Amino acid sequence: MIYRLTKPVFHTLSFFLTIVSLLPSSPVSRRIPFPGKHPLLHKPPNTLLTNYYTYETRYFQQTLDHFSFNDRPKFPQRYLINTHHWSGPSRMGPIFLYCGNEGDIEWFAVNSGFVWELAPRFGAMVIFPEHRYYGKSMPYGSKDEAYKNASTLAHLTAGQALADYAVLITDLKTNLSAEASPVILFGGSYGGMLAAWMRLKYPHIAIGALASSAPVLQFEDIVPLETYYNIVSNDFRRESTSCFDTIKKSWDVISSVGRKVNGLDHLAKTFHLCGKLRSSDDLYNWLESAYSYLAMVDYPYPAESEMPLPAHPIKEVCKAIDDSADGTNVLDRIFKGVSVYYNYTGKADCFEVDEDLDGMDGWDWQACTEMVMPMSSDKNSSMFPEWAFNYTSYAEECLNEFGVTPRPTWITTEFGGHDYMSVLKTFGSNIIFSNGLLDPWSGGSVLENISDSVVALVTEKGAHHLDLRGATADDPDWLVAQRTSEAKLIKGWIDDYYTTKKAIFKL
Amino acid sequence: MIYRLTKPVFHTLSFFLTIVSLLPSSPVSRRIPFPGKHPLLHKPPNTLLTNYYTYETRYFQQTLDHFSFNDRPKFPQRYLINTHHWSGPSRMGPIFLYCGNEGDIEWFAVNSGFVWELAPRFGAMVIFPEHRYYGKSMPYGSKDEAYKNASTLAHLTAGQALADYAVLITDLKTNLSAEASPVILFGGSYGGMLAAWMRLKYPHIAIGALASSAPVLQFEDIVPLETYYNIVSNDFRRESTSCFDTIKKSWDVISSVGRKVNGLDHLAKTFHLCGKLRSSDDLYNWLESAYSYLAMVDYPYPAESEMPLPAHPIKEVCKAIDDSADGTNVLDRIFKGVSVYYNYTGKADCFEVDEDLDGMDGWDWQACTEMVMPMSSDKNSSMFPEWAFNYTSYAEECLNEFGVTPRPTWITTEFGGHDYMSVLKTFGSNIIFSNGLLDPWSGGSVLENISDSVVALVTEKGAHHLDLRGATADDPDWLVAQRTSEAKLIKGWIDDYYTTKKAIFKL
Repeated sequence: MIYRLTKPVFHTLSFFLTIVSLLPSSPVSRRIPFPGKHPLLHKPPNTLLTNYYTYETRYFQQTLDHFSFNDRPKFPQRYLINTHHWSGPSRMGPIFLYCGNEGDIEWFAVNSGFVWELAPRFGAMVIFPEHRYYGKSMPYGSKDEAYKNASTLAHLTAGQALADYAVLITDLKTNLSAEASPVILFGGSYGGMLAAWMRLKYPHIAIGALASSAPVLQFEDIVPLETYYNIVSNDFRRESTSCFDTIKKSWDVISSVGRKVNGLDHLAKTFHLCGKLRSSDDLYNWLESAYSYLAMVDYPYPAESEMPLPAHPIKEVCKAIDDSADGTNVLDRIFKGVSVYYNYTGKADCFEVDEDLDGMDGWDWQACTEMVMPMSSDKNSSMFPEWAFNYTSYAEECLNEFGVTPRPTWITTEFGGHDYMSVLKTFGSNIIFSNGLLDPWSGGSVLENISDSVVALVTEKGAHHLDLRGATADDPDWLVAQRTSEAKLIKGWIDDYYTTKKAIFKL
Repeated sequence: MIYRLTKPVFHTLSFFLTIVSLLPSSPVSRRIPFPGKHPLLHKPPNTLLTNYYTYETRYFQQTLDHFSFNDRPKFPQRYLINTHHWSGPSRMGPIFLYCGNEGDIEWFAVNSGFVWELAPRFGAMVIFPEHRYYGKSMPYGSKDEAYKNASTLAHLTAGQALADYAVLITDLKTNLSAEASPVILFGGSYGGMLAAWMRLKYPHIAIGALASSAPVLQFEDIVPLETYYNIVSNDFRRESTSCFDTIKKSWDVISSVGRKVNGLDHLAKTFHLCGKLRSSDDLYNWLESAYSYLAMVDYPYPAESEMPLPAHPIKEVCKAIDDSADGTNVLDRIFKGVSVYYNYTGKADCFEVDEDLDGMDGWDWQACTEMVMPMSSDKNSSMFPEWAFNYTSYAEECLNEFGVTPRPTWITTEFGGHDYMSVLKTFGSNIIFSNGLLDPWSGGSVLENISDSVVALVTEKGAHHLDLRGATADDPDWLVAQRTSEAKLIKGWIDDYYTTKKAIFKL
């Protein structure tokens, strides 16, 4: 079996699993696959309560450009809906809306079991609308047409996606005479950013938001640019300093081997690649992808949100790296380590680093327009090579790739970010920012309580999007406690809403 | 001297001074000139403190479409700026930003004296950015090009205008190293709506908003559709029931005269029109414009925000209608009445009801896209003919006129409106809704206090945009008191902001 892995695509970026190439000689960006791309994985994870994952699939004729009156054609927005447990409009039954991310919505539905499990307890309807330009929610009739050029991709933005959700839910509530039903937003990762932003921008539409692993501050210079890679690095160092050291050492070894005669062939052989290695950059990126992704999914139980992985996968990777006999060379150790990630099942004979050319990803476009999340790698604290974010070359690459110039300050202008403590304190309410500190994205999220109703729920040993996953028998106590706190806060929002509504009704 | 008056333009609408044709036989819409269109009037009004009205005119290269990444050309956005009294970035000197309305920004600057007069007391900078597609802020190089068709007009929306202000002020603050300076928004009429919406949508950019005469609730069925015309009618009845009765009677008389042989000529002669009258609709519209506008500018002192008018103009109009000798027929009385409005200086020999064909107004487009403000006229309570708002014909007319279909629920989806009491209570802060109850637009605004910091300041005898005008020697006590309250609230916002900032600084 050959795993199709990602060929480093220069000049593009991705979010959930984006990392930036760290080669000082080529300060470019690349993307790696983000969860949800593998059709094989479109099945419920190992949750306790899989019977909740039932839904009807519907389509809504959605406006392509909410913010202008161009006569562009509407597009079918897919959404998943389950009303089985809904207590109905007369009882103002709540609506749980998951803000779809940058991928097929079915993947997010099955990986967000918490939403499904919580709904019956609240008599809530569940709805998972898909993000425009992903999955089956394609403008212009097909992905080929939607992704044709900058002009057709123009309306793939976060602001338009939020407006989609606002319009869809308003229409749905009107059709069900459920105008009085409170809407609670959920979202993880980019979807969590959307949930938080939607609560801020559409408070008249949703009364609260659970924003899980949402790096809303990963823009401009709000958090130190080294944050992301420092967290990845610390996740490895925390398991084993020798593992951290070996990885840190490996980059120079790869470089020097790659420069030798037949060096690339040697690298290809060492890493069991199916084909030729065209440059050591490709290998860098392949390894970086693995480490970054491992930091995100360093879950306390076996899971396969992208790859099948053991519990505490970083511990396992480091074990493989460290356990190799003393004399084993660095590259062999590294290969043993990443094999835990790329080949946990042991079924792969070789690895493919070429990407399908038709696999252009919407997040590349988003990163090249508004989702500019600058990252650097610090010589001292990071296990990756030193690298400084260079906006000029970033922008040039976007221009080459898409013919588009990013607007790197637009997100903070539209949604805020600078001075977020006082802004959220005086203006925000009913938002939970939940994070696990192993997650490298947690450094760009809100990690302190801001007020009584803008709350940070942080777990030391949690990883990316973990709290939104369905309950499992292996859940540690701290995870159960985090979810209990979330449910309690959400109950508080809904209770407050009903109290206010009833007070008005009595007047 | 011939006043160029407005030819009724069927199928189009306008805001500040829009009224809807009330002829049951032709349920169409029209617009009448809104303040700021007459170049002659681009001079400061009779304020006490005209020396404050000095500013520098600058242009900012503005993004045409903030919400997509089309490669449309930027456009020069004009803004007026005065930094004379600004206490500067090191002292976090405030920035007063007036949200430009649907017209030449210079007109709004000179008619918003309150902003200029208040600035020195706060050490504030004043900035009046112009609304896109108005005045000199034209996309595509000229008004002719910008107003060419639906495609070029597509980006004339409230949401884009707010984004303009957000981007402009962010850029300006960055250039001045004034990131910490608090921004206070001002706006009257549509500009007041923008100010309130901007405070809700961009709380990270502006700490408070004075929204004067802002009918943010004049959408869908949030307020009764008869509200606007009932207020106009009550303004007349309040002065004199016989005046109200005469006007109410006049519509049938006009109809019946107009249907007679040579009836239109007779009407043209009675109303001293310069040219032929093509239909009695034109006369209806001409009269309705006058009455509606009189209700808006029923100021307690002589003013000329559009036409030169006496103090309490409705009282004067009714006096002219009532004082005519007993035997004088209805039409002569009506003519005497509206002459107070259209010819107060007595210099007009005749009146022109034809409009320049090139005078297409941006508000017509806005009304045909998102600013759908339904209005009806009630048989019993209104002095106008009975008329019910018909969305179907409204939409048809917009399609004919512009090739565009309105999105009548978009404004409330984007900015809220339904259930505004609880939404603003739980989510809004630092907004003043100021209104004068003589103003027919006051019925669509917020007239009750919502919370400690979302406050309604209502004056019984005030009219449209009155509190934002400059101080005059003739200001009644209640107007002085209203402005004092506004200044006090704004001072409170700024003081709170400084307290928070200093607390953070000390940490």
